[in-house]
Amino acid sequence: MTPAQMLEGILGNETTRRRRSVAKAITLLESVRTDHRLQADELLTRLVTYAGKSFRIGISGVPGVGKSTFIEALGLWLIARGHQVAILAVDPSSTVSGGSILGDKTRMEQLSVHPNAYIRPSPSRGSLGGVAEKTRESILICEAAGYDIVIVETVGVGQSETAVANMTDMFCLLQLPNAGDDLQAIKKGVMEIADLVVINKADTDPQAATRAEAQISGALHLLSSIGNSREPTSRWVPQVIKTSALTKQGIDVFWSSVMSFQREQSEAGLIERRRRAQALDWMWERIHAELKRSFQDDPAIRALLPAISAQVEEGVIPASTGARKLIAAHAEARRMVS
Amino acid sequence: MTPAQMLEGILGNETTRRRRSVAKAITLLESVRTDHRLQADELLTRLVTYAGKSFRIGISGVPGVGKSTFIEALGLWLIARGHQVAILAVDPSSTVSGGSILGDKTRMEQLSVHPNAYIRPSPSRGSLGGVAEKTRESILICEAAGYDIVIVETVGVGQSETAVANMTDMFCLLQLPNAGDDLQAIKKGVMEIADLVVINKADTDPQAATRAEAQISGALHLLSSIGNSREPTSRWVPQVIKTSALTKQGIDVFWSSVMSFQREQSEAGLIERRRRAQALDWMWERIHAELKRSFQDDPAIRALLPAISAQVEEGVIPASTGARKLIAAHAEARRMVS
Repeated sequence: MTPAQMLEGILGNETTRRRRSVAKAITLLESVRTDHRLQADELLTRLVTYAGKSFRIGISGVPGVGKSTFIEALGLWLIARGHQVAILAVDPSSTVSGGSILGDKTRMEQLSVHPNAYIRPSPSRGSLGGVAEKTRESILICEAAGYDIVIVETVGVGQSETAVANMTDMFCLLQLPNAGDDLQAIKKGVMEIADLVVINKADTDPQAATRAEAQISGALHLLSSIGNSREPTSRWVPQVIKTSALTKQGIDVFWSSVMSFQREQSEAGLIERRRRAQALDWMWERIHAELKRSFQDDPAIRALLPAISAQVEEGVIPASTGARKLIAAHAEARRMVS
Repeated sequence: MTPAQMLEGILGNETTRRRRSVAKAITLLESVRTDHRLQADELLTRLVTYAGKSFRIGISGVPGVGKSTFIEALGLWLIARGHQVAILAVDPSSTVSGGSILGDKTRMEQLSVHPNAYIRPSPSRGSLGGVAEKTRESILICEAAGYDIVIVETVGVGQSETAVANMTDMFCLLQLPNAGDDLQAIKKGVMEIADLVVINKADTDPQAATRAEAQISGALHLLSSIGNSREPTSRWVPQVIKTSALTKQGIDVFWSSVMSFQREQSEAGLIERRRRAQALDWMWERIHAELKRSFQDDPAIRALLPAISAQVEEGVIPASTGARKLIAAHAEARRMVS
């Protein structure tokens, strides 16, 4: 399939062809081949004006919290109400293992075969930054294809939660009723980026769920009185709700909370403003990653680095001198090459 | 004073001359002039083998917690026991205001005139990264001059606490007895980098101080059971003590806690290991900062950036495409220049 055919398929009305084109386009942009990257760039540039029309929801939680069951229940609920739902994943473990445990279609049996849903597992190559970039670009493709709800799933380990919060309009954190102390989430700084905390599997231990609800509400109020680092001008106070995805309880409550967030934030112009800031941050993140990469790949740096690193580690030369020597060598090498 | 004279003075035995030489050397390395920077580099390279023999202690706390009084009491106590004490400061506010509220000599009246103490306020120019670099280099100068205890003071706002923790062997956090909930410190991630928490001004409200001690101990135990991100292999459980710097109570308890930390960590080889890692991190931090700076100062980037930023913000081009365009322009400009 050529990029032009993909574009036609993505923007077209034929459901099966559209899904196939979306899949092909995402595969193209996940490719590491230079010619594919150029094609992907061209495709994205032509697509981007059609993108941006979905509501982007990040969902995170530790393994075992019931993310797949929750997302499947939510997706089917939304489709029954006329929405088209795309589910993408950012799996930090996939960058190590090469396999993805998130967005696994076998875990969302009904949703994965539904014509109005598109499920894509996490890109399984590259650094977290690279994986996040592919997912961000995949959001644009899904939006151009008409998916009006894009869910980005991640797992509650590592920095992937911040990455997902930075590519979505709203960030939801799933918790277990008996997770006990919420210090861990606060410590990792996840609680403070959550716009909505969902206590899932609430039916397994209703008392614990109610206790967790009170505890987390208290923590969120304290955190929001200290000041929310994500959006200082928003007056949204993060909410806590209870659900049971298995028995499909609480999905309506979840969605009405999402809608009131979306309404409040849109009216204040905050979604638009956050998206602009996210796009700019993303650009700079890619620039800085590329500057680092090209520095580290420079043969002059590769040749000098072991000796200078050892000298710096052993305190034979100050770290700042080591840095200046390497930077000078890099500049010199660039002059020689050209 | 030439760098050679400074070096001689720093390494020499004459107290007055040594203090003057240390001051001149730090002024030299804080200078932004290129020739000064080259002299400073040379000086540091010749000094660095004499450095490293102090114990480096970071001390932080919000304004009003009594840092100056505490450090003065501690400094005098240490000098009375034969130590030579240098006090440096990293003041994040100085990078904005150009003035420094930390390490102000008028706030440490007795210590500042003592021949065995050297007090230096925060560098008042540049980014936090730049200020931190100067302070790191100043530590080396103080060590070469024979100060065996180096205290780096900072204030409990912004990222300066992480910067100070990354240049010291031990990080101490001062707290007020009635600070109430310790969520704020946990949220900022400071509590988890603290090796020792000092409840200062404990005499003003002994009951509150005891309550705070129990609360903070509990939080620290929880955090350390989750895992300390700073030093995963250390078995040190952060301690909490009460002091009153004004009445000089608890300084001995403070110091014996510092000494048991130092003993435990040295025996396990962790201080040496952490210093090696800190030096390498510092080198990479400076390299990345310089790569960013030279990118942003590139005339080609300055010319293109406003238009591309606007296109990315408005969603006319994808962020990744914006990044690639700028990187290509930067590479092209470098080829043209040389």
